[in-house]
Amino acid sequence: MLKPKRIEDYGIIIGQLPKGKLNKITDVEGIRVGHCTIDTEENKTGVTVILPINDNIFTNKLVAASYVLNGFGKTTGLIQIDELGTLESIIALTNTLNVGPVYDAVVEYMIEQCKKENIELQSVNPVICECNDSYLNNIQLRAVKKEHVFKAIENACIDFEEGDIGAGKGMSCHQLKGGIGSASRIVKLDGKDYTIGVLVLSNHGRLEDFMINGDRIGSRISRSISAENVPDKGSIISIIATDVPLCSRQLKRICKRAGVGLARLGSYIGHGSGEIMIAFSTANILKANGENEIIDVKVLKEEKIDIIFRAVAECEEEAVLNSMITSSKVVGYKGKSRDTLKDYIEVR
Amino acid sequence: MLKPKRIEDYGIIIGQLPKGKLNKITDVEGIRVGHCTIDTEENKTGVTVILPINDNIFTNKLVAASYVLNGFGKTTGLIQIDELGTLESIIALTNTLNVGPVYDAVVEYMIEQCKKENIELQSVNPVICECNDSYLNNIQLRAVKKEHVFKAIENACIDFEEGDIGAGKGMSCHQLKGGIGSASRIVKLDGKDYTIGVLVLSNHGRLEDFMINGDRIGSRISRSISAENVPDKGSIISIIATDVPLCSRQLKRICKRAGVGLARLGSYIGHGSGEIMIAFSTANILKANGENEIIDVKVLKEEKIDIIFRAVAECEEEAVLNSMITSSKVVGYKGKSRDTLKDYIEVR
Amino acid sequence: MLKPKRIEDYGIIIGQLPKGKLNKITDVEGIRVGHCTIDTEENKTGVTVILPINDNIFTNKLVAASYVLNGFGKTTGLIQIDELGTLESIIALTNTLNVGPVYDAVVEYMIEQCKKENIELQSVNPVICECNDSYLNNIQLRAVKKEHVFKAIENACIDFEEGDIGAGKGMSCHQLKGGIGSASRIVKLDGKDYTIGVLVLSNHGRLEDFMINGDRIGSRISRSISAENVPDKGSIISIIATDVPLCSRQLKRICKRAGVGLARLGSYIGHGSGEIMIAFSTANILKANGENEIIDVKVLKEEKIDIIFRAVAECEEEAVLNSMITSSKVVGYKGKSRDTLKDYIEVR
Amino acid sequence: MLKPKRIEDYGIIIGQLPKGKLNKITDVEGIRVGHCTIDTEENKTGVTVILPINDNIFTNKLVAASYVLNGFGKTTGLIQIDELGTLESIIALTNTLNVGPVYDAVVEYMIEQCKKENIELQSVNPVICECNDSYLNNIQLRAVKKEHVFKAIENACIDFEEGDIGAGKGMSCHQLKGGIGSASRIVKLDGKDYTIGVLVLSNHGRLEDFMINGDRIGSRISRSISAENVPDKGSIISIIATDVPLCSRQLKRICKRAGVGLARLGSYIGHGSGEIMIAFSTANILKANGENEIIDVKVLKEEKIDIIFRAVAECEEEAVLNSMITSSKVVGYKGKSRDTLKDYIEVR
Repeated sequence: MLKPKRIEDYGIIIGQLPKGKLNKITDVEGIRVGHCTIDTEENKTGVTVILPINDNIFTNKLVAASYVLNGFGKTTGLIQIDELGTLESIIALTNTLNVGPVYDAVVEYMIEQCKKENIELQSVNPVICECNDSYLNNIQLRAVKKEHVFKAIENACIDFEEGDIGAGKGMSCHQLKGGIGSASRIVKLDGKDYTIGVLVLSNHGRLEDFMINGDRIGSRISRSISAENVPDKGSIISIIATDVPLCSRQLKRICKRAGVGLARLGSYIGHGSGEIMIAFSTANILKANGENEIIDVKVLKEEKIDIIFRAVAECEEEAVLNSMITSSKVVGYKGKSRDTLKDYIEVR
Repeated sequence: MLKPKRIEDYGIIIGQLPKGKLNKITDVEGIRVGHCTIDTEENKTGVTVILPINDNIFTNKLVAASYVLNGFGKTTGLIQIDELGTLESIIALTNTLNVGPVYDAVVEYMIEQCKKENIELQSVNPVICECNDSYLNNIQLRAVKKEHVFKAIENACIDFEEGDIGAGKGMSCHQLKGGIGSASRIVKLDGKDYTIGVLVLSNHGRLEDFMINGDRIGSRISRSISAENVPDKGSIISIIATDVPLCSRQLKRICKRAGVGLARLGSYIGHGSGEIMIAFSTANILKANGENEIIDVKVLKEEKIDIIFRAVAECEEEAVLNSMITSSKVVGYKGKSRDTLKDYIEVR
Repeated sequence: MLKPKRIEDYGIIIGQLPKGKLNKITDVEGIRVGHCTIDTEENKTGVTVILPINDNIFTNKLVAASYVLNGFGKTTGLIQIDELGTLESIIALTNTLNVGPVYDAVVEYMIEQCKKENIELQSVNPVICECNDSYLNNIQLRAVKKEHVFKAIENACIDFEEGDIGAGKGMSCHQLKGGIGSASRIVKLDGKDYTIGVLVLSNHGRLEDFMINGDRIGSRISRSISAENVPDKGSIISIIATDVPLCSRQLKRICKRAGVGLARLGSYIGHGSGEIMIAFSTANILKANGENEIIDVKVLKEEKIDIIFRAVAECEEEAVLNSMITSSKVVGYKGKSRDTLKDYIEVR
Repeated sequence: MLKPKRIEDYGIIIGQLPKGKLNKITDVEGIRVGHCTIDTEENKTGVTVILPINDNIFTNKLVAASYVLNGFGKTTGLIQIDELGTLESIIALTNTLNVGPVYDAVVEYMIEQCKKENIELQSVNPVICECNDSYLNNIQLRAVKKEHVFKAIENACIDFEEGDIGAGKGMSCHQLKGGIGSASRIVKLDGKDYTIGVLVLSNHGRLEDFMINGDRIGSRISRSISAENVPDKGSIISIIATDVPLCSRQLKRICKRAGVGLARLGSYIGHGSGEIMIAFSTANILKANGENEIIDVKVLKEEKIDIIFRAVAECEEEAVLNSMITSSKVVGYKGKSRDTLKDYIEVR
């Protein structure tokens, strides 16, 4: 299959830092992403999973943090991430009303993973994120079932697809088609290359406000298609990964910079939108067992964090654009449809 | 059936404020509580629901807030409560691994409630709280199903039972039997009576540390039954309700005072425990529709809040004791069992 | 004196909402702003005060909130603002090392104000904000004394000056001259006009990153003056005022949207910068005395808050630009100097 | 001089962990505490400093965190501590209206310290904590001047005095005399001894509520002296130090456990009280300079933190009692006086 063009293929350059090999979150070693898409007359929806590490994440916890820029959202798992500073579950993205079944499927998957290590899992903190795809999807059907989650896990790979796929199938962004997008950046520390990657599930923003590198393309498209004037509803989920050794406090700091990318694309961080950021680092693996009570970890020197801030802001901005430009037009539930940015970008 | 004795029936007085009629959270008008218990050889678990208002809570939102004293927990819904300051769903309590199915059942119930008003619900923020009952319950089975949630809702009443019932069936508190407990207090404001009520799902604490009004009863019991020395794992969920008109900031302040009650019973707020408080006020109902953009609400004058702080601390302390004293001894999964406080309290 | 041109006078339009009469924070009725500038060979610094109400703010408290976007800053008073949701002191802006003397002067001023009402003030929560002007100012001298604070209060007026004045005298923004800037917007609610105003003390950002409405003017200027590549140090203080009745939770939400304006001007919210936002509403005055324990207040319906978000983001962006464009070039301590944006804006 | 008896000398045992050599915060190596007391007819007040390290704290920053249990307080410096997770200044305690002059004195001291290392200090984050001693002290005079702060620094030692001394001179606790108190505990990790220490400036609580190990001594004293029924005003500052390597997130967690100690002494964490906790660890010193961008640090394994929680709660409870029992009766401003606990403790 021909790979869909991404925003850089249109000559649009976001930021200045060098990009990773695939320019995706999976440039951070060990991370895989899988989708399962539901595409029926009634349902345009699905599930996307992020597997943060090749091993069992429950017994190989990663340092993590979250930030809620606007909390009109239902993401689960943030309380424990904030308290303990660790991620102990895979991350799953889906639609708003499907959080329950996806949560349960992730519990089942984690039980299975632990069983392989002869651990009887009795508690786990699933991280289920959601956006509301009810514009294109008959959301009340809660179409995502356990088997879809397991299928997405099975499908997990490094060079994953973007756009109207997995949890992104029915999402809208700036009133055009949104969904899954990703980007990555490379930074040098102590002479060594490190990677920062972002994956978004984009479902936020108004068309009128949408701009690319200062060009108010959204306003032009809006006039050409007589888009309705709607409030900013939806949400955007941003998953930030890195192999830079950051502590949970530092990860929370970098989460905040995702907001810079959103603002530059024209978002005002609308009331009806859930802007949720989750970041984790693969640098320090916290083993469940281990002899010592005091352990050695690596952390980035605080004064060197600015370059990570820039990397996150650039990734976020480009990931959202990739989520839009790689999506095809989707006609969904009750005949409502979302145009794709790629049909308008040549007019630039 | 004979009503089980509560802590006050043993002559133990917690605090000084007058109590409500039932000395339960349902003394706050409009609130009902329902249980559904699963009691099999393998499973000692269940679900408890709090219905905060007689109407559909989605179209009659209440002012709410939460506070996380220790975040080793998986409660859902707090992000949106904190952002918007409102509760728009019923609250359900269950075991840790059952959050997914219970979440989904609450979504279904809320869809049904809205359908009655011809509203096609597309987004809702379910508040599902959990404690870990795996000591007595085969938690991996996730025994709580949709029908149990609906049964609990159906069972909702004002004079609800406490102890080893509903979500409390398999819970442990200070290494004795814990579960559902409640208490209420009356305060006078502008010459009128207002009510503060607390419901807890108790599942925290070590026996050695347990004390009542300064009496180290836990230490004595511990020696008499040679209790094992275990870390404080578990959690306690505290739901605080009132008809005092409090804004979300004030509700967060009163949430913090539940910790006073826990400390006085001997808890050190252990690492492995999720101490989650959720508070709501029934005084201002936020209708989904309404003509005005600027609305009138009532709030308590800040300087008068001390009496509410005391009421919350007293209710929390007494609710935990009620959860313990009203529970019977339970023998559970793999033959493990929890004694009941009532078998030891006369030795005082 | 000829009024300095503001950014709109250069044909640069920020956002779409209508502006207030002066396009300053003082368009919100009751607010006055005063400066006292210290301009010597060694010192380029000063103090700026915001008087939020014509009466004694201690006995006429206003609803308030704060938000810390990046906390590399020393602003005082936020703990109490966050807990109680009220502002009970005038706000003063100054340089980083001068917080102590300015704090003391504000205490003295508040004591005097209360004395007029025969109140013996024993506690007050002064809000002193700071940015670091040590690039142009010999900051160790702590040149701002009590008399300067009282002079600034005396100078308070509605049509206050912007630019390199008061606390803004020695500040830098995007490596050009920064300082005091302001803007306002009008929104209609229930058919009535309300005002949102912002005042900034700008001292943040890198020249290379600076852009206006998507035009990377900073990069061009940077090349033309061979600006050094420096980290983002400094800070920006944003004071947001409105007569829309917002509760403290809502005010915190609008504070967050100031970040949108900063991102659009090119900031990545640098590590070394203190991005502090403080918002207050003049709509509900909380009198120290009063008969009732439960009081009536007005609040904006939550779903109507999007327009306020936009107003804040627009004001913030324009206020920063006004702080830059109204400043003259300043040559300061040790001969270091900052150019003014107005010398480069025609080249556009 | 005869050393004043401390609470343990009265046979009152708080908790179970072993104590440090002096049972003071200075059992944590490197910490010194100094007082300067002002004792005139009008003024009963002063300043107390905590020097966290023998070197210049600005160039040898320590990992730190804070927690605000109740924010009716004016402590400065917490914004930056929370953002960067570090302490870069000595800590000073004083009365509420004296924050400004003490802040300025600490700035001056830090400038001097840096000058010795040929560093021109341009920014520093002073941590000034306060309680309101206006019951015994003519607080409007702001009696604490620069020289008192420098004198307190000069007086800093390991075996410092407690009670009505330094910032504690005019403070009240549970309507008896309060002030400076301290305690420490020893914990074993990886077979090695570590120390946790707490210093409090106590000025909170009602007499009626005061209890010791469950004994309601406050109620008895209250009746015997016909104490007036007053609201809980005041505040308590808690400084927690340890040589256990804790990250800032862990330090925030341990801060929360100070509240356990307060609750056990009878406090309801009153509205009018500022309950501020600041914790720092001396285990990882963050040098301003250093070659590497990624550094090695030690941290406690999260699952081992319970013992630290207990140590903090025990220290807090004992430190408050020590602050009371070591104080003499003080007759202050306008003839108002506070009795000392030691005159009532034998009646037990």
